[in-house]
Amino acid sequence: MQKFENYLNKFNKFLNNQHFNFEPNELYQPITYTLALGGKRIRPVMALLACDIFGGEYAKVIYPAMGIEIFHNFTLLHDDIMDDAPMRRGKETVCRKWDSNIAILSGDTLYAMAYKYIAQTDSVYLPRILDVFNKTAIEVCEGQQFDMNYETQKNVSIQDYLNMIRLKTAVFLGASLKIGAIIGDASQANIDNIYYFGEYLGMAFQLQDDLLDVFGDESKFGKQTGGDIITNKKTYLYIKSFELATGKTLEQLKKNFILNHPNNGKKVKKIKAIYVELKIEQLVQEEIKRYYLRSLDFLDKIMLDDKNKVELKSLANRLIKRDF
Amino acid sequence: MQKFENYLNKFNKFLNNQHFNFEPNELYQPITYTLALGGKRIRPVMALLACDIFGGEYAKVIYPAMGIEIFHNFTLLHDDIMDDAPMRRGKETVCRKWDSNIAILSGDTLYAMAYKYIAQTDSVYLPRILDVFNKTAIEVCEGQQFDMNYETQKNVSIQDYLNMIRLKTAVFLGASLKIGAIIGDASQANIDNIYYFGEYLGMAFQLQDDLLDVFGDESKFGKQTGGDIITNKKTYLYIKSFELATGKTLEQLKKNFILNHPNNGKKVKKIKAIYVELKIEQLVQEEIKRYYLRSLDFLDKIMLDDKNKVELKSLANRLIKRDF
Repeated sequence: MQKFENYLNKFNKFLNNQHFNFEPNELYQPITYTLALGGKRIRPVMALLACDIFGGEYAKVIYPAMGIEIFHNFTLLHDDIMDDAPMRRGKETVCRKWDSNIAILSGDTLYAMAYKYIAQTDSVYLPRILDVFNKTAIEVCEGQQFDMNYETQKNVSIQDYLNMIRLKTAVFLGASLKIGAIIGDASQANIDNIYYFGEYLGMAFQLQDDLLDVFGDESKFGKQTGGDIITNKKTYLYIKSFELATGKTLEQLKKNFILNHPNNGKKVKKIKAIYVELKIEQLVQEEIKRYYLRSLDFLDKIMLDDKNKVELKSLANRLIKRDF
Repeated sequence: MQKFENYLNKFNKFLNNQHFNFEPNELYQPITYTLALGGKRIRPVMALLACDIFGGEYAKVIYPAMGIEIFHNFTLLHDDIMDDAPMRRGKETVCRKWDSNIAILSGDTLYAMAYKYIAQTDSVYLPRILDVFNKTAIEVCEGQQFDMNYETQKNVSIQDYLNMIRLKTAVFLGASLKIGAIIGDASQANIDNIYYFGEYLGMAFQLQDDLLDVFGDESKFGKQTGGDIITNKKTYLYIKSFELATGKTLEQLKKNFILNHPNNGKKVKKIKAIYVELKIEQLVQEEIKRYYLRSLDFLDKIMLDDKNKVELKSLANRLIKRDF
């Protein structure tokens, strides 16, 4: 666990030493603003950690790790335009504080900057790192498009949903570990196994996030609960409840899951009660556990000494074992 | 000149053999649509040509050339959102035919695809090609931001304007040639000189485009003239006319260069008459010639046999000597 904290501090120090005060201001101010908003920095630290446990050097992985974090921030910038989101990490989004054109273009610039950092990878690893990065970038876009489609699409299955979060969230966690492992000169089997460890962990992580959005402790979760219910987001919980509900419960579900509900507080309360009635929380918990255990199966397969495996195990617990 | 045509055909054939029928449709249909709209394909052909004249192999440059064209199309997709443009190459823009969210995201996907092609560059050249590409991508974004700033900024100097078109247009033409030259194993001096040859040519090219927008033959120019006048775009012509006009002419200029002019036909006619009065066309022609001659200075410095220099000279003439 200590390694994660150490690398988190090291990464934040590195990031704070990067300056982007270039011209035109209208382009670079939103970039500086976005990167200063903070965030958990999970992905770059995963890359640093993975490189470390396979014996790789920090100096070789810090630039691609920075590329990973910048790319993540680019996706947030553009997602916030598409979702018309007013707030991000407790502050105004770029598309609101400036405008959506500036958010498009400063996002595009962040994207190019991400590749500028990635390009500083040692040339021995560069082609492989680029392959992972490009593949992941495309998958993240595909995931976001599926997510947008599902807003209006009527029939979204659990399978559709799981594939969407795999593309939008999980693969990027896997890729972050993979990039670290490649630069740490891990064997191909270890690289593959750490990737799937990260991907399955990412699935559990996103499902847990969906659960926290409904049942989280607001003071710990850091944002108001019920947001997904208010926007009728087709999460695992939503889809599962329609799968299971019958009779009056189904009627109530349909009655309340309408857009522009006259009383959102009431809507959240009603839906939450139905979720409790249908034991949705337990079902999601079981699904989270399944993905979590699957990720540990891949962890088992990684050829590493116990000391380093413990680091990955604590990473998994850090991501999954949150209070709810 | 024949080489250009040959490579244009070869490139189009290559492009037509690339298929992007992936899921989700909402993401890949706009991509297929955009790439099928055509366009002059100048940039990729410049890369193919530059590689050829230095003795490089087609097979080594075709993937980065495709990356260049895809990147160019990505910029058009996002520019059209920012400019709220209804049409592109005689067809509806993606942001109109679908919507702006889809244009953002399919643009982002094109961007990642561009890097996927770039990443297929032989690893010997890859780090250098990436450097050129990343630097150029950032400059193009900066140019677009300056362009947007100038829409509302009151005082835009000729110098500001020239720097904006350098970033937005010219550097990418230079970079296309440079990428070809690097893969053609050209010397560093040759690489630098062909870059500046392309950049100065790009300046002349953009200035000519501005001129054609006012004085072009509509049947040859392929679009209606006067668009820049209607939108009060701060082109070289606009800025120069305000620099030179005095008394009643200045008054007329101010009176007509208002947004939402009640009669755009009249506005274009009036402004055109003022441009003629102030001999703006000749001034722009002189500026074009200056840039064109400067580009030829760099062409002179390139160490190549005459036969291959002729190819670059015809490229220059192809780009600049259009009828107007």
